[in-house]
Amino acid sequence: MTDDTLRPSGRAPDALRTVLIEPGVARHAEGSCRIRMGLTEVLCTASVEGRVPGFLRGKGEGWVTAEYGMLPRATHKRGEREAAKGKQSGRTQEIQRLIGRSLRAVTDRKAMGEMTVTLDCDVLTADGGTRCAAITGAWVALHLAFEHCMAKRVLSRNPLLGQVAAVSCGLWRGVPVLDLDYAEDSAAQADANFVLTGAGGIVEIQATAEAEPFSEHHMLGLLALAKQGTAALFAAQQEAIGA
Amino acid sequence: MTDDTLRPSGRAPDALRTVLIEPGVARHAEGSCRIRMGLTEVLCTASVEGRVPGFLRGKGEGWVTAEYGMLPRATHKRGEREAAKGKQSGRTQEIQRLIGRSLRAVTDRKAMGEMTVTLDCDVLTADGGTRCAAITGAWVALHLAFEHCMAKRVLSRNPLLGQVAAVSCGLWRGVPVLDLDYAEDSAAQADANFVLTGAGGIVEIQATAEAEPFSEHHMLGLLALAKQGTAALFAAQQEAIGA
Amino acid sequence: MTDDTLRPSGRAPDALRTVLIEPGVARHAEGSCRIRMGLTEVLCTASVEGRVPGFLRGKGEGWVTAEYGMLPRATHKRGEREAAKGKQSGRTQEIQRLIGRSLRAVTDRKAMGEMTVTLDCDVLTADGGTRCAAITGAWVALHLAFEHCMAKRVLSRNPLLGQVAAVSCGLWRGVPVLDLDYAEDSAAQADANFVLTGAGGIVEIQATAEAEPFSEHHMLGLLALAKQGTAALFAAQQEAIGA
Amino acid sequence: MTDDTLRPSGRAPDALRTVLIEPGVARHAEGSCRIRMGLTEVLCTASVEGRVPGFLRGKGEGWVTAEYGMLPRATHKRGEREAAKGKQSGRTQEIQRLIGRSLRAVTDRKAMGEMTVTLDCDVLTADGGTRCAAITGAWVALHLAFEHCMAKRVLSRNPLLGQVAAVSCGLWRGVPVLDLDYAEDSAAQADANFVLTGAGGIVEIQATAEAEPFSEHHMLGLLALAKQGTAALFAAQQEAIGA
Amino acid sequence: MTDDTLRPSGRAPDALRTVLIEPGVARHAEGSCRIRMGLTEVLCTASVEGRVPGFLRGKGEGWVTAEYGMLPRATHKRGEREAAKGKQSGRTQEIQRLIGRSLRAVTDRKAMGEMTVTLDCDVLTADGGTRCAAITGAWVALHLAFEHCMAKRVLSRNPLLGQVAAVSCGLWRGVPVLDLDYAEDSAAQADANFVLTGAGGIVEIQATAEAEPFSEHHMLGLLALAKQGTAALFAAQQEAIGA
Amino acid sequence: MTDDTLRPSGRAPDALRTVLIEPGVARHAEGSCRIRMGLTEVLCTASVEGRVPGFLRGKGEGWVTAEYGMLPRATHKRGEREAAKGKQSGRTQEIQRLIGRSLRAVTDRKAMGEMTVTLDCDVLTADGGTRCAAITGAWVALHLAFEHCMAKRVLSRNPLLGQVAAVSCGLWRGVPVLDLDYAEDSAAQADANFVLTGAGGIVEIQATAEAEPFSEHHMLGLLALAKQGTAALFAAQQEAIGA
Repeated sequence: MTDDTLRPSGRAPDALRTVLIEPGVARHAEGSCRIRMGLTEVLCTASVEGRVPGFLRGKGEGWVTAEYGMLPRATHKRGEREAAKGKQSGRTQEIQRLIGRSLRAVTDRKAMGEMTVTLDCDVLTADGGTRCAAITGAWVALHLAFEHCMAKRVLSRNPLLGQVAAVSCGLWRGVPVLDLDYAEDSAAQADANFVLTGAGGIVEIQATAEAEPFSEHHMLGLLALAKQGTAALFAAQQEAIGA
Repeated sequence: MTDDTLRPSGRAPDALRTVLIEPGVARHAEGSCRIRMGLTEVLCTASVEGRVPGFLRGKGEGWVTAEYGMLPRATHKRGEREAAKGKQSGRTQEIQRLIGRSLRAVTDRKAMGEMTVTLDCDVLTADGGTRCAAITGAWVALHLAFEHCMAKRVLSRNPLLGQVAAVSCGLWRGVPVLDLDYAEDSAAQADANFVLTGAGGIVEIQATAEAEPFSEHHMLGLLALAKQGTAALFAAQQEAIGA
Repeated sequence: MTDDTLRPSGRAPDALRTVLIEPGVARHAEGSCRIRMGLTEVLCTASVEGRVPGFLRGKGEGWVTAEYGMLPRATHKRGEREAAKGKQSGRTQEIQRLIGRSLRAVTDRKAMGEMTVTLDCDVLTADGGTRCAAITGAWVALHLAFEHCMAKRVLSRNPLLGQVAAVSCGLWRGVPVLDLDYAEDSAAQADANFVLTGAGGIVEIQATAEAEPFSEHHMLGLLALAKQGTAALFAAQQEAIGA
Repeated sequence: MTDDTLRPSGRAPDALRTVLIEPGVARHAEGSCRIRMGLTEVLCTASVEGRVPGFLRGKGEGWVTAEYGMLPRATHKRGEREAAKGKQSGRTQEIQRLIGRSLRAVTDRKAMGEMTVTLDCDVLTADGGTRCAAITGAWVALHLAFEHCMAKRVLSRNPLLGQVAAVSCGLWRGVPVLDLDYAEDSAAQADANFVLTGAGGIVEIQATAEAEPFSEHHMLGLLALAKQGTAALFAAQQEAIGA
Repeated sequence: MTDDTLRPSGRAPDALRTVLIEPGVARHAEGSCRIRMGLTEVLCTASVEGRVPGFLRGKGEGWVTAEYGMLPRATHKRGEREAAKGKQSGRTQEIQRLIGRSLRAVTDRKAMGEMTVTLDCDVLTADGGTRCAAITGAWVALHLAFEHCMAKRVLSRNPLLGQVAAVSCGLWRGVPVLDLDYAEDSAAQADANFVLTGAGGIVEIQATAEAEPFSEHHMLGLLALAKQGTAALFAAQQEAIGA
Repeated sequence: MTDDTLRPSGRAPDALRTVLIEPGVARHAEGSCRIRMGLTEVLCTASVEGRVPGFLRGKGEGWVTAEYGMLPRATHKRGEREAAKGKQSGRTQEIQRLIGRSLRAVTDRKAMGEMTVTLDCDVLTADGGTRCAAITGAWVALHLAFEHCMAKRVLSRNPLLGQVAAVSCGLWRGVPVLDLDYAEDSAAQADANFVLTGAGGIVEIQATAEAEPFSEHHMLGLLALAKQGTAALFAAQQEAIGA
């Protein structure tokens, strides 16, 4: 590889950043973890409540939902606090809807009974890939919360049907690269977030051309990297839940 | 094909709904059209303003942005008016961000000079695929608005670099099908929105498993249908702009 | 009449603009129409719901209410979207309260039973007189919705006690003129909105001196024109409902 | 008159409530008064600021605007505080727009220069007719504020072109009656607010049928009463400003 | 005392402003008063409602809460109306929480039964010490409201356990002074609000160094003045309730 | 001490919880620390910006302000996210105003030049005393941010005039106790927050009787404990800044 095509982080195209998942960090939450992907750091908590939103009442099913936030100085330049602005940005809402959908895709909601789990994903430090880290960490928090319910005999089995994790990939000078950091994300030609299951299925793809449209060939290259990257994330999740 | 696998609309898996694009319907707008995809009907207007948002001031570039709305009774059941609720839903914001990104992907913003075009996409009747129809129609409105600027000698050439259109595809009982209507969208195993360019490039893919994860093979099947579907949309756009 | 006193539109002082009411345009609504008064174009839908607001619960009466909106580019210059601003303007609220009151004035709410009809009046193109067009069109949508309920055997008779329609009049260089368009409305000395019934009664008068106060004599001149103008509107309503 | 047609207050049909206007009650305001119409009590202040809203900048004209509020316990039953609810009701906005229009109708805005006067009308006790009392009192506060500016040599003459006052009338069992209190307003068949000038001109009429439509004949009866009632209000204003 | 240490108002360090409490001024309220502390003037009303907030339902206890507002022109310079801004400031919320806590400290909430009293404190004229005047006046309004309930046989005894009143003190050139007006408050080195009971107890102290930190010795000097000042306020309250 | 008077935490009346201040935890902030007081854990960041709010422009002075937030699951029961609710509670605003005032009391704002430092205090885990921990930690973050500016030669000396720290005290069964945790705070008869300087001065006292009023004698007991507690906090601050 010549200097010219070296990606900004200097990592190999298929190199994931160091992943660290520290479970049980939030004293009050039923399940929690702090996940780091390189410098990106997200606190994920799972809160269990014995009731469901109105549209599910009386159906015997549970609900899994998510909220996402970023501390004002998680970023290089301080961002305005959404609570002070009086509303969540479109980006925030888009991300928290994605996290919720991703987790529901691997949850047997009938097995939950009428219970809601809210996943709060708060970014302490942002360096790219926060929504992906949030999904990967939220799965750990959710798993631990379900285990907590089993220990309390509220649930007889864990309603999770499998693992789910997410990673971003992008095109750097025409080459697919794995797990973009902030500098790479800003400079990539295209970036894509993949939410994949432990069983190899696709839960969600969000691929966006930043500068110019990309090809199906590139799309397949990004997906191949994502599969490789999530394999490492699934292992980190397993380790975090002590499996 | 047996009755069992027949999709709800009865259309062939690769059949697009009837597309109708009526240009110039909004008397005051610099560019406009009404687009129908089957029963779905969206009014798209392009409004030109001779200034740019703060973050672009003095850079000699233009901006293209979008807003999306749905009339309260565009749907089967009346939806609450967002202006009365006092905020736009996460879904609305997600869609209008997508429309804006999609159009910017085929616009040479330097060629615009310091000018903003706002695309308003208002759904008059909803029957699935409203965001895709909005993108396809917004391109026509934008093209006409740029032509209007050329006629007024505000622009010397059309800053559009090519066409962009969008279509949704989904998995129905394991079979990829093109252009979901509302009933199909509600019942599909997975649905995906593809934003593609006239030159065959991918601008955006948003693919979501509704029930269970899907495979790469399925993904490729959906993409193939999308290419076929957008080919017809590009032709309809050409006809609408009188090219 | 000399050139000097010719009103901006060139119409005779007592000439109404061309009125067109197209019923049944909204596929999902129980009743609907598109009304045009010259270039002004308003989409009116009536949505029926089998319950009433809290203050009427258990009283065996129905409720008729209205919401009003304007598409951002219904006007010469794009207006900010109220949903994006996060609130409805005072003007919007004033108009929707007027529409609701006007329709309730000709409705036997006891005959409705506990049912709410919401009239959504959305301006597609604005060229003056939008609130009046909204009232005239809303009556058609409401009538059709009640007929729909009768066909469904939810109602045994139509709760409408008669027709209601509205028209604006104004003083142009001291002369009362009928049905102001936007240019005329901006230049008039006074303008007044009249909501009248088919039986010749007054439901509402809102008369405002724009420049200088006007006299009782002028007021009577405006009212005489309004009676003449609404006579034509009542005929158009009759035709639209197929009576 | 038989007992049967006696209006709820027992007053003669053409009897105004006792009017009291106490000028100069607000220590900090450039002009102010407390106006009582029977039990209704409104505090009106005029605040002068040496600049105009954006749409008037550089035009050498002034602006007069109004805000209206009601103390939570001005009414029989405590009303929710609008500041706590986070928005002004449609009724509040409608009223404050009316007050502003009414005062501007008798103000020579060119004579003001680039200056804004904001009239705050806050209802301390409500017993019907608060918007009319607010207009009548606001004129006094505005007059005093302009005199204050003349004393300070900011203005060389008073920009008020004449007096303006308002009164409500209504139909009680078919008989026009003057100056409705709360109980009468609730029971009237129709009620109308008239804003009239000292010179006998009409500034604004807002007439509404509460129960059933009314006739032109009734309208004229209400207007005649309003002229009689405002004559007394003009005298009370003159006395309050020490003319 | 030399000229140099004379406080801005010219009052002796331990001199309270003239206190006037006029009970029963709000016609509709169950209890009310207008309190003046020098130029500061606050209208306090107590509104009784036969239910409690959700968190108290079924507990057999009552609730006392407060809201605070300032008329836009209560101040030297007109302040923006909070209802128009769409939110209450942090200062407003802080003050109304303080008023509520202070009154609850002397109320036997069990003796109230399930009843809520809302104290509305609206500042008509502000010249320093508005929150203290509000507390002192609110106690009178509350007392009168409870007496009203006893007269109506809704309560068998008055749930007030004693009196509560508040006064501000401050450091002026190192000397503790009582009851700051606006000019003094702006110039003081420190100011403190004391909420004390008739029995000599402390309900709340809020002491803030404006310029530089102050000492324990100063703190005790301020508290001594506050005791002296509230003694006069307790007498004024007694007189107002006709005790 | 008998069992009966033992405080809930079992600590001696004058025992502070373990204090840990970890500086420099936020990668992007100019100054930061994580402070723990027992289980309470607050992340404090200081963000420097080279401009001041409007009211200070052109005065050559700086500004120090604060924002406070709590992660939804910092508490036993999940609290609703303020960004999702669309507004900050009165409690939040009260606390952030207190933090800002406290830091400004020890800052020479003229020495800052036209610069703003925003202190963000976000509670990761709450167990009582979060506002006090926030103040104590914010001082460390502010100190580090000023040192950062000195290293960058933006400031020639540190504008901090001394240390400031805060601690809560309360009355437990009549006995003053230091540094309440959540369980103690809920059960205390009175609680008080003291903001004191390293030089022994009082910056702010907020003392509130929860159940019944307390005496001056108790007040002095609480203040004595606060002086003792802050002495330990000042030492911890010194250690954190490496002094």
